[in-house]
Amino acid sequence: MRHLLSTRDLSRDAAIELLDVAEDMADTQLREVKKLPTLRGKTVVNLFFEDSTRTRISFEAAAKRLSADVINFSAKGSSVSKGESLKDTAQTLQAMGADAVVIRHPASGAPQTLATSGWIDAGILNAGDGTHEHPTQALLDAYTIRKRVHGSASRGKDLDGLRVTLVGDVLHSRVARSNVWLLTTLGATVSLVSPPTLVPVNTTGWPVAIGYDLDEAIEGKPDVIMMLRIQAERMRDAFFPNSREYSKRWGLDDGRLGKLQATTIVMHPGPMNRGLEISAAAADSPQSTVREQVTNGVSVRMAALYLLLSGDREDA
Amino acid sequence: MRHLLSTRDLSRDAAIELLDVAEDMADTQLREVKKLPTLRGKTVVNLFFEDSTRTRISFEAAAKRLSADVINFSAKGSSVSKGESLKDTAQTLQAMGADAVVIRHPASGAPQTLATSGWIDAGILNAGDGTHEHPTQALLDAYTIRKRVHGSASRGKDLDGLRVTLVGDVLHSRVARSNVWLLTTLGATVSLVSPPTLVPVNTTGWPVAIGYDLDEAIEGKPDVIMMLRIQAERMRDAFFPNSREYSKRWGLDDGRLGKLQATTIVMHPGPMNRGLEISAAAADSPQSTVREQVTNGVSVRMAALYLLLSGDREDA
Amino acid sequence: MRHLLSTRDLSRDAAIELLDVAEDMADTQLREVKKLPTLRGKTVVNLFFEDSTRTRISFEAAAKRLSADVINFSAKGSSVSKGESLKDTAQTLQAMGADAVVIRHPASGAPQTLATSGWIDAGILNAGDGTHEHPTQALLDAYTIRKRVHGSASRGKDLDGLRVTLVGDVLHSRVARSNVWLLTTLGATVSLVSPPTLVPVNTTGWPVAIGYDLDEAIEGKPDVIMMLRIQAERMRDAFFPNSREYSKRWGLDDGRLGKLQATTIVMHPGPMNRGLEISAAAADSPQSTVREQVTNGVSVRMAALYLLLSGDREDA
Repeated sequence: MRHLLSTRDLSRDAAIELLDVAEDMADTQLREVKKLPTLRGKTVVNLFFEDSTRTRISFEAAAKRLSADVINFSAKGSSVSKGESLKDTAQTLQAMGADAVVIRHPASGAPQTLATSGWIDAGILNAGDGTHEHPTQALLDAYTIRKRVHGSASRGKDLDGLRVTLVGDVLHSRVARSNVWLLTTLGATVSLVSPPTLVPVNTTGWPVAIGYDLDEAIEGKPDVIMMLRIQAERMRDAFFPNSREYSKRWGLDDGRLGKLQATTIVMHPGPMNRGLEISAAAADSPQSTVREQVTNGVSVRMAALYLLLSGDREDA
Repeated sequence: MRHLLSTRDLSRDAAIELLDVAEDMADTQLREVKKLPTLRGKTVVNLFFEDSTRTRISFEAAAKRLSADVINFSAKGSSVSKGESLKDTAQTLQAMGADAVVIRHPASGAPQTLATSGWIDAGILNAGDGTHEHPTQALLDAYTIRKRVHGSASRGKDLDGLRVTLVGDVLHSRVARSNVWLLTTLGATVSLVSPPTLVPVNTTGWPVAIGYDLDEAIEGKPDVIMMLRIQAERMRDAFFPNSREYSKRWGLDDGRLGKLQATTIVMHPGPMNRGLEISAAAADSPQSTVREQVTNGVSVRMAALYLLLSGDREDA
Repeated sequence: MRHLLSTRDLSRDAAIELLDVAEDMADTQLREVKKLPTLRGKTVVNLFFEDSTRTRISFEAAAKRLSADVINFSAKGSSVSKGESLKDTAQTLQAMGADAVVIRHPASGAPQTLATSGWIDAGILNAGDGTHEHPTQALLDAYTIRKRVHGSASRGKDLDGLRVTLVGDVLHSRVARSNVWLLTTLGATVSLVSPPTLVPVNTTGWPVAIGYDLDEAIEGKPDVIMMLRIQAERMRDAFFPNSREYSKRWGLDDGRLGKLQATTIVMHPGPMNRGLEISAAAADSPQSTVREQVTNGVSVRMAALYLLLSGDREDA
């Protein structure tokens, strides 16, 4: 793997290889010394143009367990967030010998720009760009689903035949986009449930069914229900339902939790707004994978860094 | 040791064990390579909901000398400082495999909540919570006193018979509280000298004498005089003396320094307001332990991390 | 080497030794594992009283490649930027066992104060102080020039006979000052070209010619032309030309780039204001060393840390 920019351009085989390597990485958690020497002498830069402590420390923990050197570069609000400077920043990191750059950026496409610009040879890992993609989130979600469904027999498996429903603010969600592509590639059937004003204007070519009614979706007995995070600052938008209405119509409350099949997996990328898009009972139920998702996030990011940095990076 | 939350619940034996391990840790400072492999593969998270560069880098240096991976998580001012989110933050750190969490929090009791919540298995180290406790500060103070009094024969010793006077804003001081409990447990006699408006309302059960007159206290020939830090922002409080009056009545100025016995130890947790609670001459006198306290802080924190993380953590 | 505070007090031999060690360090970039165990167990503190992500991460990468522990201490805007506190901060770092302190400070002379105060034994590395000096920048510039001119035969060489022109806001530039002294010490002839209002008031004793006309300077066929960075906030100064006039008279635009000899080296310390002091074509031309400068910065900082920390530090 040369870069990890999106799940849309990830093949089924590449995705499954990454999930399988993540399984190996998860095994290191069981060791006395949870550290592998694999990436010793490699430098991973966390280049964050937006705050995201959770994602940053997940990548930081992953890189450190592989013995890489980690340099945090918080560029939020600084002058480097402008176009020209992304070039200079990239060339600086290149010149300093960065081996991988984990980039989060408010502009959709910034990681792609970095990867294809020729400014830098480092492997580029998209940690979330605008409303575009957040591929490691989708990969950890896929990993989590596969593990729940197949357990210790997960290796090599895809998500064939599983029905996954994503619920919430799809319009602004890069997590939703990355999951739509990846889960479909892995054989799942994906449907979206969203307030009508929060469906993307153009979903031509999206391999999904789109609905507006959560109760109807639950009656369809999905295998997985994934609640998207509501960002409080959006609640002021004209086209956004108020939080009371949102919770009533699109929240996974206790009533709806009770109507799910016992085997349905409840997911959320975190951090959760308990009482808004998900009730406390749903978040903490045995069906919930919220904590596994975080754990698996470290394994998946270890796998991504490993595949990008351990020698056999083919050219794109 | 399962957690280190307060000195109030620390037994004499546990306290002395920690001080003895800190002596071993201090020896590593003399080595060519000051690094021990003890905590390799362990992850220590500095979870700071308040700024404190000094305390953070002391813990960071301690953890790195033990070869742990350190992840800094500055949560000040962010949404994670609210109740519900502490749970999510804790579960996230748990899921990421944090082995120890060093927490500083503006709310008294937050570390206790974290340790007893079941949200996280990591060892919890209280690095200061509200006006409650700051146990590693008291432990480094005790270590410093013991070392000054007993020198190379310190190991196994307590502070039996020593008389310690704490001076200043006891009301808001977690350092004072932690010292009151720990020094008493170790056999010292503790007295407080404070402006009348800065004595806690309820000191029932505190094993201390409370006075208001610093000159009188100095006439009593204490073995240790510990000046507390005045926080400038409190100077605007209605019940707070102005800084000129404070300095005149409760500051360790040159006149009072001259009246101390030559063997009295002068302590301050830092950073000092020179000219306010302590004069420059007092801060820099041979009786002052201010710099030793900082050095010993690293050894004591190495000991605390070691006892929490090196295998023999009994359950609470 | 005891400290690295300025290039003005650096002898020719000391400078060449540092450049030669930097060549060795550059070789580590070619290794499979780019890490040397040289500074294992040493603690390097980046003490930054001004923001400078580029310089900080260059020092951080350098220290980590030598296996030192790095602690970042961003003191910008905090109370520690005042005089008294510099002492307490220094004593704190001393007491914590810092082996080297890389300091950036808005006040000219702060690193010197730290090094000569007796507050701290650590090696002090000046990473830029006020308008005074930025010695590692000049050293990486000298390294870059030497490498371009002498290639693989660089070792032991100086810059004898080379003519270097520095262009821009010399008044506020610590980079200019450090280069004036170092390049002269190494045998180069240095001249300055600057708007008349941006020449320092007192250049008595500076071993340089001062001019105001960039075109005239280019006609003189310099071997090196080094463009200084314009800081946007200065553009509001009364004595500062507006940016249009600046660019027209003192910018290295495409016209002037065309008039340079093919062998003239174009330098810039970064980050560049493309279109202001340097055109995009000049910045990206084969004559430009902008990226090499960044790469060489890591090697030069590795060399400086190595010489300060690897045992044979003579007293000043």
